Amino acid sequence: MSKRKHNFCAGPCTLPTGVLEEMHDEFLDYQGAGLALIEMSHRAPEYDAVHQEARRLALEVFRAPEDFDVLFIQGGAILQFAMVAMNLLRPGECAGYVNTGAWAKGAIADARHYGEIYTAWDGAADGYARTPDDSEIEVRNGARYLHITSNETIGGIRFPEFPVVDVPLVADMSSEMMSRPIPWDRFDLVYGGVQKNLGPAGMALVFIRKSVAARANESIARYLRYDVHLDKESLFNTPPMFTIAMVGKMLKWMKAKGGLDAIEREAAEKAAILYERIDESEGFYSCPVDCASRSHMNVVFRLPDDALETRFLAEAKSEDLLNLKGHRSVGGCRASIYNAMPRAGVEALSDFMQRFGSEHR
Amino acid sequence: MSKRKHNFCAGPCTLPTGVLEEMHDEFLDYQGAGLALIEMSHRAPEYDAVHQEARRLALEVFRAPEDFDVLFIQGGAILQFAMVAMNLLRPGECAGYVNTGAWAKGAIADARHYGEIYTAWDGAADGYARTPDDSEIEVRNGARYLHITSNETIGGIRFPEFPVVDVPLVADMSSEMMSRPIPWDRFDLVYGGVQKNLGPAGMALVFIRKSVAARANESIARYLRYDVHLDKESLFNTPPMFTIAMVGKMLKWMKAKGGLDAIEREAAEKAAILYERIDESEGFYSCPVDCASRSHMNVVFRLPDDALETRFLAEAKSEDLLNLKGHRSVGGCRASIYNAMPRAGVEALSDFMQRFGSEHR
Repeated sequence: MSKRKHNFCAGPCTLPTGVLEEMHDEFLDYQGAGLALIEMSHRAPEYDAVHQEARRLALEVFRAPEDFDVLFIQGGAILQFAMVAMNLLRPGECAGYVNTGAWAKGAIADARHYGEIYTAWDGAADGYARTPDDSEIEVRNGARYLHITSNETIGGIRFPEFPVVDVPLVADMSSEMMSRPIPWDRFDLVYGGVQKNLGPAGMALVFIRKSVAARANESIARYLRYDVHLDKESLFNTPPMFTIAMVGKMLKWMKAKGGLDAIEREAAEKAAILYERIDESEGFYSCPVDCASRSHMNVVFRLPDDALETRFLAEAKSEDLLNLKGHRSVGGCRASIYNAMPRAGVEALSDFMQRFGSEHR
Repeated sequence: MSKRKHNFCAGPCTLPTGVLEEMHDEFLDYQGAGLALIEMSHRAPEYDAVHQEARRLALEVFRAPEDFDVLFIQGGAILQFAMVAMNLLRPGECAGYVNTGAWAKGAIADARHYGEIYTAWDGAADGYARTPDDSEIEVRNGARYLHITSNETIGGIRFPEFPVVDVPLVADMSSEMMSRPIPWDRFDLVYGGVQKNLGPAGMALVFIRKSVAARANESIARYLRYDVHLDKESLFNTPPMFTIAMVGKMLKWMKAKGGLDAIEREAAEKAAILYERIDESEGFYSCPVDCASRSHMNVVFRLPDDALETRFLAEAKSEDLLNLKGHRSVGGCRASIYNAMPRAGVEALSDFMQRFGSEHR
């Protein structure tokens, strides 16, 4: 086995070694059953225990109240862009979308096919370097919900506080899923792909207010209906069993770590290590994001020029600090420090940034 | 490690031990990269090689011609029930669906939301015990396609030959995917969940005529558009990397086994072992399916009464022959003998059936 490297990939994410090893240990023969978990019927008692524990832990770790349930739906957050509008909007209703960058734009583009969507705030003029204050968000009469992208993976911005507005919130939290508490009373729905903070790729988690799911849209196919998944406890069809088993293990790991408070605190501390390194560099490193909107998950930064960035990325890689290149649409560098990124990884990166900075300043 | 058992589950399926072991060996540290494959970026060269090989092998093993491509789409065959109609039907067009049982009914129910669907043949009168002759299938003027469920997992019937009709065929082949050759010139699209013949649960394979995908429906969300997945080679969003890696390994295994001809031959031979056992039992075992329509994948049979069936299932389990219970909607027994079920497993079941029959006749 080669030396474990630090993976700052924006997604899929690094996973705790303990979680990987537990899956590895049970992979070929699940609990002495004589077959692998992924070969079992999704109606088998062994799998059912895994499935129900993952559901229970998702609600528990995220502290979702009784009137919410959690759904496991394939297709990533991107299918949710469509499903949210299909399920929540009725003829004549509209919904406001806050445009904070790349992912918000995707949500708007897909939702537009299924209802009247308006842009409630547009960050384009500011280069998507910040999230809006509540007073800047337009809430129209008759709006069914306000959609936010609580953290933009590419731009590296987040809502430091969730908006307080007169309509229910819907949030794409893919890149900061379960890394901060939710004021559930303000929300109808929270969704996110699991491949950043919660496990390997292959599904989205959807936390939905049960009364919202119950107002079913019966004119769409069953897989696209929240009420169908809710009624069947995400066993309407064969679920992505491996992904669910891994997410269950991640949730157990998160709970053992101290749950949401501990995770939120550690996320803030890990992010602070890098932002401080950037701010103390006397301009060698720069972060294009407004201080108040800085993401705790995706720390974006630039170096003085492209040549230095290329060199930075190459030297980082040689020190086992992987995937620090920014998204191809914006360039620069980005360190994604999701729930499973150990503090030691962040410190190793910070140390490297310090050394590289003092050599090349 | 406990003794490997024979798993006749209708889905998810048993997998070749070699495939499971290969994944197990590389699970924690992929090719010395210092991280797991499922932790890598889906844009990483290591993953890209896995992804492209799975795509290439899928087309090669299934002998799809140049004018077809293969897509990896999450949501199982059930999401395809909706996507086929959404993508292929234009206003004013209709499509015929052959109703052969449980899965065909699901396809019809979901497609109806997205176009004019008519039942081209209905097997209800015959208790879904057979598939139709071509002369029984109604093909209407202006029909865009004829949809068939080439194998019904629950009823245990299959089309012994694919229909020859005047419109393109679309087939749900979930439960016999890549177990028989396709006359591609008659098809526009073939789809199926991978969790029966090709790997663990988590996606569908869609083989689509490229010219059909190109006639895109631009009024639906991107994840639901075949052209979007095709243009991005199934990397439009983060794909289910673990499932794709496993399917790639299964395809390699199938190729090494001799490819489609060898698989088709072995499937017929394995099925014949069980049907002969049933037919030779002087009525102790009975198969409700018309001989010509008997599935090569899902062998359904009954015993003289419920008490004997219960005993049969319990004793089979004690001999490590698992998951032989028929679907809850029809009862009885069912042996699902997908591509990865070794002949030895089928022989063990046949021997057990012989012993049980002679003891209880």
